[in-house]
Amino acid sequence: MGSLVPSLPGLLYGGDYNPEQWPEPTWAEDARLMREAGVNLVTVGVFAWARLEPRPGEYDLAFMDRVLDLLHEHGIRVDLATATASPPPWMASAAPESLPVDADGHRLWHGARQAWCPSSGAYRSAAVALVELLAERYAGHPALAMWHVGNEYGCHVAACWCDACAERFRAWLRRRHGDLDGLNHAWGTDFWSQRYGDWDEVVPPRRAPTFVNPTQQLDFRRFSSDNLLECYQAERDALARLSPGVPVTTNFMGLFKPLDYWRWAAREDLVSNDWYVDPGDPRGHVLGALGFDLMRSLGDGRPWLLMEQAPSAVNWRPRNRPKRPGQMRLWSLQAVARGADGICFFQWRASRAGAEKFHSGMVPHAGPDSRTFREVSALGAELGRIGEVAGARVPADVALLLDWPSWWALELDARPSADLRQVDALLAHYTPLWEAGVTVDLAHPEADLRRYKLVVAPNLYLVGDAAADNLVAYVAGGGSLLLSCFSGVVDENDHVRLGGYPAPFRKLLGLKVEEFWPLLPGQTLAVRSADLGPFGGSLWSEAVRAEGAEVLAEVDGGDLDGTPVLLRHRHGAGTGWYLATRPEPAAMARILARACAEAGVGPVAPPAPGVEAVRRTGDGGSWLFLLNHHDRPVSTTLPSPAVDLLTGRRLEGTITLERFGVAVLAQEGS
Amino acid sequence: MGSLVPSLPGLLYGGDYNPEQWPEPTWAEDARLMREAGVNLVTVGVFAWARLEPRPGEYDLAFMDRVLDLLHEHGIRVDLATATASPPPWMASAAPESLPVDADGHRLWHGARQAWCPSSGAYRSAAVALVELLAERYAGHPALAMWHVGNEYGCHVAACWCDACAERFRAWLRRRHGDLDGLNHAWGTDFWSQRYGDWDEVVPPRRAPTFVNPTQQLDFRRFSSDNLLECYQAERDALARLSPGVPVTTNFMGLFKPLDYWRWAAREDLVSNDWYVDPGDPRGHVLGALGFDLMRSLGDGRPWLLMEQAPSAVNWRPRNRPKRPGQMRLWSLQAVARGADGICFFQWRASRAGAEKFHSGMVPHAGPDSRTFREVSALGAELGRIGEVAGARVPADVALLLDWPSWWALELDARPSADLRQVDALLAHYTPLWEAGVTVDLAHPEADLRRYKLVVAPNLYLVGDAAADNLVAYVAGGGSLLLSCFSGVVDENDHVRLGGYPAPFRKLLGLKVEEFWPLLPGQTLAVRSADLGPFGGSLWSEAVRAEGAEVLAEVDGGDLDGTPVLLRHRHGAGTGWYLATRPEPAAMARILARACAEAGVGPVAPPAPGVEAVRRTGDGGSWLFLLNHHDRPVSTTLPSPAVDLLTGRRLEGTITLERFGVAVLAQEGS
Amino acid sequence: MGSLVPSLPGLLYGGDYNPEQWPEPTWAEDARLMREAGVNLVTVGVFAWARLEPRPGEYDLAFMDRVLDLLHEHGIRVDLATATASPPPWMASAAPESLPVDADGHRLWHGARQAWCPSSGAYRSAAVALVELLAERYAGHPALAMWHVGNEYGCHVAACWCDACAERFRAWLRRRHGDLDGLNHAWGTDFWSQRYGDWDEVVPPRRAPTFVNPTQQLDFRRFSSDNLLECYQAERDALARLSPGVPVTTNFMGLFKPLDYWRWAAREDLVSNDWYVDPGDPRGHVLGALGFDLMRSLGDGRPWLLMEQAPSAVNWRPRNRPKRPGQMRLWSLQAVARGADGICFFQWRASRAGAEKFHSGMVPHAGPDSRTFREVSALGAELGRIGEVAGARVPADVALLLDWPSWWALELDARPSADLRQVDALLAHYTPLWEAGVTVDLAHPEADLRRYKLVVAPNLYLVGDAAADNLVAYVAGGGSLLLSCFSGVVDENDHVRLGGYPAPFRKLLGLKVEEFWPLLPGQTLAVRSADLGPFGGSLWSEAVRAEGAEVLAEVDGGDLDGTPVLLRHRHGAGTGWYLATRPEPAAMARILARACAEAGVGPVAPPAPGVEAVRRTGDGGSWLFLLNHHDRPVSTTLPSPAVDLLTGRRLEGTITLERFGVAVLAQEGS
Repeated sequence: MGSLVPSLPGLLYGGDYNPEQWPEPTWAEDARLMREAGVNLVTVGVFAWARLEPRPGEYDLAFMDRVLDLLHEHGIRVDLATATASPPPWMASAAPESLPVDADGHRLWHGARQAWCPSSGAYRSAAVALVELLAERYAGHPALAMWHVGNEYGCHVAACWCDACAERFRAWLRRRHGDLDGLNHAWGTDFWSQRYGDWDEVVPPRRAPTFVNPTQQLDFRRFSSDNLLECYQAERDALARLSPGVPVTTNFMGLFKPLDYWRWAAREDLVSNDWYVDPGDPRGHVLGALGFDLMRSLGDGRPWLLMEQAPSAVNWRPRNRPKRPGQMRLWSLQAVARGADGICFFQWRASRAGAEKFHSGMVPHAGPDSRTFREVSALGAELGRIGEVAGARVPADVALLLDWPSWWALELDARPSADLRQVDALLAHYTPLWEAGVTVDLAHPEADLRRYKLVVAPNLYLVGDAAADNLVAYVAGGGSLLLSCFSGVVDENDHVRLGGYPAPFRKLLGLKVEEFWPLLPGQTLAVRSADLGPFGGSLWSEAVRAEGAEVLAEVDGGDLDGTPVLLRHRHGAGTGWYLATRPEPAAMARILARACAEAGVGPVAPPAPGVEAVRRTGDGGSWLFLLNHHDRPVSTTLPSPAVDLLTGRRLEGTITLERFGVAVLAQEGS
Repeated sequence: MGSLVPSLPGLLYGGDYNPEQWPEPTWAEDARLMREAGVNLVTVGVFAWARLEPRPGEYDLAFMDRVLDLLHEHGIRVDLATATASPPPWMASAAPESLPVDADGHRLWHGARQAWCPSSGAYRSAAVALVELLAERYAGHPALAMWHVGNEYGCHVAACWCDACAERFRAWLRRRHGDLDGLNHAWGTDFWSQRYGDWDEVVPPRRAPTFVNPTQQLDFRRFSSDNLLECYQAERDALARLSPGVPVTTNFMGLFKPLDYWRWAAREDLVSNDWYVDPGDPRGHVLGALGFDLMRSLGDGRPWLLMEQAPSAVNWRPRNRPKRPGQMRLWSLQAVARGADGICFFQWRASRAGAEKFHSGMVPHAGPDSRTFREVSALGAELGRIGEVAGARVPADVALLLDWPSWWALELDARPSADLRQVDALLAHYTPLWEAGVTVDLAHPEADLRRYKLVVAPNLYLVGDAAADNLVAYVAGGGSLLLSCFSGVVDENDHVRLGGYPAPFRKLLGLKVEEFWPLLPGQTLAVRSADLGPFGGSLWSEAVRAEGAEVLAEVDGGDLDGTPVLLRHRHGAGTGWYLATRPEPAAMARILARACAEAGVGPVAPPAPGVEAVRRTGDGGSWLFLLNHHDRPVSTTLPSPAVDLLTGRRLEGTITLERFGVAVLAQEGS
Repeated sequence: MGSLVPSLPGLLYGGDYNPEQWPEPTWAEDARLMREAGVNLVTVGVFAWARLEPRPGEYDLAFMDRVLDLLHEHGIRVDLATATASPPPWMASAAPESLPVDADGHRLWHGARQAWCPSSGAYRSAAVALVELLAERYAGHPALAMWHVGNEYGCHVAACWCDACAERFRAWLRRRHGDLDGLNHAWGTDFWSQRYGDWDEVVPPRRAPTFVNPTQQLDFRRFSSDNLLECYQAERDALARLSPGVPVTTNFMGLFKPLDYWRWAAREDLVSNDWYVDPGDPRGHVLGALGFDLMRSLGDGRPWLLMEQAPSAVNWRPRNRPKRPGQMRLWSLQAVARGADGICFFQWRASRAGAEKFHSGMVPHAGPDSRTFREVSALGAELGRIGEVAGARVPADVALLLDWPSWWALELDARPSADLRQVDALLAHYTPLWEAGVTVDLAHPEADLRRYKLVVAPNLYLVGDAAADNLVAYVAGGGSLLLSCFSGVVDENDHVRLGGYPAPFRKLLGLKVEEFWPLLPGQTLAVRSADLGPFGGSLWSEAVRAEGAEVLAEVDGGDLDGTPVLLRHRHGAGTGWYLATRPEPAAMARILARACAEAGVGPVAPPAPGVEAVRRTGDGGSWLFLLNHHDRPVSTTLPSPAVDLLTGRRLEGTITLERFGVAVLAQEGS
C-alpha cells in the first residue's frame, strides 16, 4: 500500500510551523528540535498572507524561500499552505464589501481572522492570484510534500448574508430549482403568503419577525456549503494545473455542521482533520473515535491525516485544562488505530503574542525542558516503531448513516422537539458499539451499503427519494436496517411525507406512526419488554401502530400504554428495526447487541470496559490496537497471541494495559 | 338571544382553511370531511395575499371564487380574511422601507410573516386596496358569514422603531400632549437633561446607553397599540362601507401585552380569541379560564368566538406535547362555559411545508384515520347537542381590574422589583376565585363597577385621576375594593403620586406606605394573623402605617416586625382592603374567601378540587358547566337536579365526572 | 491639617440637588430641611445642561443664579457641576455623529443619559463652551465650594467604536508606538495575518468573526480611558484658567474597570467616589472597604469625598432592597473611618418622574416624616460631633497592587481560565486582612513601595519592565512580596515573557512555572502543608518547580501530586512568597497571617469577628473606628482607654457594640 504522501513512507509526524512569528535566528533551533522530536512534516504559511503580500499585488516570497530551504536541509517535508485563510488588513480597506455580514446585518470586521465573504470577488481573485504565485514558485521545491488549501473553512464564517451572497444564492437556487415555480413549490411559499414573483425578491434568511421559511433556511445551508466549496475548488484547480501530482487537502473539523463534508471530501486527494478533544469531557474520546471514523469514511476507507490537535491545553474554552500525562499519546494512537497515517499538531512553537498564545505548542513557553516537549518527542519515536501500519485499512461491518442536509433540517426551528440533536443521536447509537468493540463506518444514505451487515440510521429526519429507495433495496436485498425515531419524516425540500410516518419505510418496517409525543426534560418513558427487560426512554415517544411488525417492547403505562416502542419486521431478504424513543444507554446497548447478533456482527476483540479495540488490516498484515482510556491499569484478553510493536514484547492471554496505556499488536504470521 | 353570526344559529365550529396550500382535487375531500366533522364555519384566506395579488396591483381572485362556491355548496359558512396579515415578497422589493426595524436598528426581513411596518404608507394603501376589492367581490356571497381583519395583530411586530414610525409617534404625541411644554412635563425631561426644544428631536425609545425615559417608553407602547389599531380601523372602515351588516372581528391573543384590547374591542362587532394552552403547564387551564373571562369582558359580556386553538400539539415551543386524550374536548367546552359561542382551530389540514407543518391540524398528516380527527368529529357532534346555550351570558359578581398602560408601566425597567409581573399578579388573585367557583369578570378601572359586589386590583401600579376617582366613588357608594401592593403609585404619566403610597387611596384605605421592601427570590415574609393564621409572603413587603385601618395581619419578626400586611377600612358605605405582600396561595384563598364572604359573593356550585364550575344564563334558561381537570374521576355535588345535555341523563346529588369529563347541566324548569 | 474644601472646616455633608425637577416654591422648603439635616454642601446642576442651554448656543443661567443665591442665604455651599454629563436632545439632532456606536455598529440614541461619543468635536466644543460660561459666571460666587466635572465618566459609554473614535485611536497609537513597525510588533500582527501596511487600515476592535487581537483590545481600553480623560482635562483646564483655586473633582465609581483611575486621580484636586453597596450582598461592606481604601490611595493618602451613596434603596438592580435601619449610618461612618472627609448622597429629594424615581432620596416620596429623613438628619448631627477627624490620615503597612492594564489584559478572552477575575482576586486577598484589622493601601506596581512592610500582588498578570524592576528592587531592599498565581506572565504588550513563568520574578522567587492547570468549577485542589495544615484550592493550579525556594505547601494527590503550592524565598534583604492556587478563605487567612507576622505587620486593634477596625491619625490626634457589621450586639476589646466621640463616653477594656453600632474612639492624650 502507498503512503499518504509520495516519497514519505511510514507515518507522518509534525505540526503547524509559523516561522514568521519568530526572529530568524530561532529557525535553526527549530529545525534541530524538530529532528530531535521525530518530526518529518510541517505545515507552513497558513496565516502568512500578510507577509507574502504586504500590500495589494506586492509580493515578497523571499522569507518563504529561506524557510523551505532550511527545512529541506534538515530533511523535513512541507505541507505548504495557500495562505488564503485570512486576508491582510488591506483587503478590508480596499474592498470593504469583502467583510462578511451576519443575519442581523452586522458587518464582521478584520482584527481577528477569516474576515472574508465567500462571495467576494475581491477576495476570490486575490486568493487565486496568490495560490498561482505560490504554485509556480514551489511546485518543484524538494521540500514540498502536499498542499494545504485555506484553513478550517467555515470555522468562524460559515455563511454570509450580504447582498453579494444574496446574488449568488439566487443563482444557486436557479440551478437547483430551475424556475420560480420550482422555487415556490420547493419552499412551500403558499404558506404565510411567501410566493415569489421575481427572482430579485429572494434573499438569504435574514433576521425576520419570526421563523423563516424552513426550506429557505435549508437551501441557504446547502448554498453556503457549496459557496465555500467553490472557493476551495478555485484554489485546487490552480494547484492541479500548476503543481500536478502533489496531493491537495484542506483540514476538516470533525463533526462540523456547516459543511457537507461528503461533497467536500470528493474533491480532496486526502482527507485531513483537526480534532481538539475537551480534556474535561469524560466522553471526549468516544466523540473523537466517531470523528476519526467519519474522516476514514469520507475518504472511502483510505488513510487520513490528523492535521491538527493540541499538544496539551487549548485557549478558547472558558477553562482550558492541559492533557494529563499519557493522554496526548493515547489519543494520538487512537487516531492511528482508526486509520490516520499521520499525526500533527497546532502548533510547533507556542506563540508569544496574539489570540492563541495560551494554546499549547510542541515547544511550550517554558522551552524544550518541559513535559510537553518530552511527550512530543516520545510519541515521535513511537510512531517510528509502528510505521508498518501505514496504508492499512480499518474493516467495518456496521454503517451509521449521516447526511448533512438531514442534520440541518433536523435542527431547524419549529420542530416537535428542539432536543433531538444530530450529534447526540449519533453518539447515542455509536457509543454502545464502540464499547462493544464493533467497528463502525459512517455512510451517506445514498451510498452502496451492501458491504455492511447492519446499517443504523439515528434520526435520519430528511430522506430524499434516492436515499429512501436505496435503503429499502438494501433491506430487500438482505441487509439489516435499524431506524430510530423521527426519521424519514420529510423529503429533500423538508416537505412532510404524508400518510403516517415514516412514510417511505412504513412497508419495510410494517408500522405507522400517527403522532409525535416528545418528552419534556427529565421526563422518562417507561418501557416493558419480555426480551430486553424494562427500560426508560428519554426525549421522545410516539403513537406507533404495528402493521405487520413484531413488537419487542412497548410503553408501560400513561397515555400511550401498550404502544410499540421497538419493532422488528422482515422485508424481502432482510430485516427492519424501528426504535420509537431514545433508550437509556444500557438498553440501547442491549438493543444494538441484539441487532448485531442477528446480523452476524461481532467485536474485533473481547470487550473490556473502557478499553477501545480496533483492527487495521493491510497487505502487510493486521494490527489490533488496544487503548485503555482509564487512568488506572486494566486487564483484557487477547483474541490470539501477538507482538506489541510499541514494546517489541510477545503477548498472549490476559494482559494488563497501564493507565492510558496502548498496545499495537501485530497478528502473528502476518 | 341572537347568535354570533346572523343566520347561523347555535354554536359555530370549524377552523382556518388554507386551500391554496393543497392541489385543487383535495378540496372536495376537505368539504366532505368538514361535513363529517360537524364544521359549519371556516376562516379562509388569512395568508392568501400573495395568491390574490401575485404582483403589485395585479389581482387574481378566481381561486377564491371557487373555494367560496364549493364551501357554499356544502353548507359551510366562511369567515373571510382580509389577507393583509402578511404582504407578499414584492412588497419588500418595491418598498424596502415597509420592512420593520427593531430598537437596535436591525431591519426585519421578509421570509417569515408579518414583515411590515405599521406606519408604512405602501403597506397601508396596498392593504386597503385589497380589502376593498375583496369586499366588493364577496359582500354578497351567500357563504360569507363574517370578516376577519388581518391576523394576530402585533404577534411578532408589535412596534417598529423606524423613521416613519418616529414621524407618526411625534404626531401622536402632539395630539396627546399638545405642545412641547406638555411633552416635557409628561416625560419629566428635567431629569437627566432630556428637555426637548424641537419636535424633530423626539424619537422612539431606541437602543440607548441605559434606561430610556420611562414615560417615553410608556407613550411609545400607547402609540404602538394605537398605530396598529389605525391599520385595523382602515380595513374595518372599508368593510363597513362596502359590506355593511356583516360582522367584523380580528383575532386577539388572550393576555397579550402589546395591544390595549379595551381600545381594540370597542371597534369590533364581536370579540374573537386565539388560545394555545401549553399542555405541559399544570396551571394552563386556569390561565385559559382567565383569558376566556377577559374575552367575554372585552365584549361587555357578549358571547365571543374561540377563533384558533390547536387540535393537539403546536410547533413553536421548544418541546411540543400533544393534548392528551380528552383535553382538547375539555378545554373547548371550557371556552363555551365561559361565554364562547364558537370553537375553531388552526388549522383544518396540517401543512406539508413551511414553518408550521408540525402544528397539528384537524386532519393530521396521518389522515382522517387518526385520534385527532376522531376527537374533532366527536366534539363537532357534542357542540350540536348543546347549541341551546348560544347567546347566554355568564353572570359575575367580582371584577378583576386590568389596565394595559398600568401593565406596561409596571413592567418597565428600573422598578423596585422586576419580579412583580402583571400576569402573575392577575393569576395569583384569580386562581383562588376560580378554585372556589366564583365567577370573575375583567374590568377597566374607569368602567362602571357598580354591578360588582367585589373589585380586586392586583398591582394596579398606574392609576389616572379618572380611575382613582372611579374607584373611590365605587367604595364610597357601597362597594368592596381589595387593592394589593404596589398599586396607585403613579399617575398616567408614570409620575409618582407624592405623600405616601398609594396616595389616591390612602384615605379610602386608612393607611400610608412609606417605603418598599421587595423580597429577594426565595425569601419569605413571615406574617402572623389572629384571624387568618400565620402565612408566608413572597416578592414584596412594605413599610405600612395604619392610619385608621384595622390591621388583620402583620409582619412577624425581622426589620418590619409588627408592620401591617392586611388591612381593612370602612369608607363611606363600602370597604377597602389592602394587601401588602403576595401571600402563599392557601393564604390568598383565605383572604379572598373572607373578602367574598363580607361582600356577599358566593360560588355557582359547591366547589370540588380541580373541578371548574361556571354558569351561563340566558333567556332560554341556565346551564351549569362542570369540568374535571384531573386525569382521574372526581366526585362533586350538584346544587340542584339537572339534565346533562351531553348525555341526556338526569343527574342529582353527588355525581362522578370521569377523567377530563364535562357535564353541561340544564337547570330544571328553565 | 486642611479640610477638603477651603473655608469649610470639619466634615462635609449633603447630596445631589436637582432643583430643576421641582417647582420653585419647593426650593425654600428644601433649604430649610437641608439646615435641619445638617447639610453643608450640595451638588448642583449635574443634569442641567438642557435647562442651561435649551437650544444650541442659547444660554439661560437665571435659574442657576437663583438656586445659588438661595443656598448661599442658608449657608449651604455648592459643589457646582459642569453639567456636561448628558447633552440635551438637540445635540443628537444637530450632530447625529455625536451619538456613540457600539462594537456591533449599533448607534446609541438619546432618551437616556450619556449619549455622547468622547471623540465628538461637536460634543467637546459645546461642553467646553458651557464650562467656560459657568466658570465665568460663578467663579466668584460665595456659595461655590468646588467644581464637579461631568458625572461618572464612562458609566454607560466607556468606549465608542465609531469612525471618529477610529481616527483618534490611530492618532493615539502613533503616539504610543511611533510607526507601523512599532504597532505591528506590539500587536504581534504576524499571528493570523494581521500585519498592517497603512495606518488607515487600523480600526477599533469591532465585532469580528472570532477573538480580536488581544493587544488591539488592550490598547483600545488604554485609549478609551485616555480619550475620556481628555474630555475631563479640557473642562478642568477651562476651570483652572477661569476659576483658579477652587478644587476640581469628578466622581469615581470604586473598582470601575473601564477607567485607569491612577491616571485620572493625578489630574484631580481631590478624589471623590460614588458607592452603591448592594444591601443584599453579605460581603458588600468588605467590597466597600476595599473601594474606600482605593479612593484614599488614589489621592496618595489624602482625605477624599464620598460624593454619592443611596440613602436607602437604589432602583437599577433587579430587586432593590432598602438599607436596613442603621446600615446607612454604619456604612457612612465606614467611609469616614477609611479616610472620607465628606459624606454625600444621590439625591436630596427623590424624583417624581424619570428613570430613577424609585432611587431613594434624602427626602423620600413620603416626605420628611419618614425613617429615611430621620436617619439622614441623625447622621448629619453625628458627623458634626466627629468633625475633628477631618484631615487625618489612615496609616497602612500593607499594599495591595492594582494596575488597570493588567486588569484589562487578565480579563480578555482566550485566557487559560475565564474564572480569574481581578476584583475577585483582590477581594480574596483583601478580606482576610480586613478581618484581621490590618489596614491596606492600594498601590500601583511602579509606585515607591518602600514605605510598606508587605506588598501583595493578586493576579498581577501583566507586568511592564519598570514594574518588574520596581518589585524586584523592593524585595532586594528588604521588602516582602507575596505574588499569587498567573502573575508576571506578559509584558505591557500582552506578549508572553518566555522561559518559564513568572519570568521576571523567577530569580526573586526561586522557582519556575512550566504549565497552567486551571481548575473546573467545583473542582478542589487538595493541598498538604506541615506548617499550615491541609487546605483546598480553587480556580487554578500549576506545574511549579522549586529552584531554590522553600516549599511550604504542596499538592496532595492527582496528576500534580507533590508539586509546590506555597513557596518562600529569600532574595537580597527581603522575601518573596509565591502562591500557586486560590486557597479557601481560612487557608488564605493563615497564609497572609504568616506573611504579615514575618514582615512585622500587625492589626490596629484586637480583631473581633465582623468588627471592622481602622485608625485615622492626624496632627490633632488619633481615632480608632470600630464598626459592627452584625445585626446583633458584639463585644470587642479596646487596645487602650478612649472616649467615644459619638456618645462622649469614656470606654475601656471589653465593650459592646450594638447591632450595626459604631464607636469613634479618640486616643487619650491625643
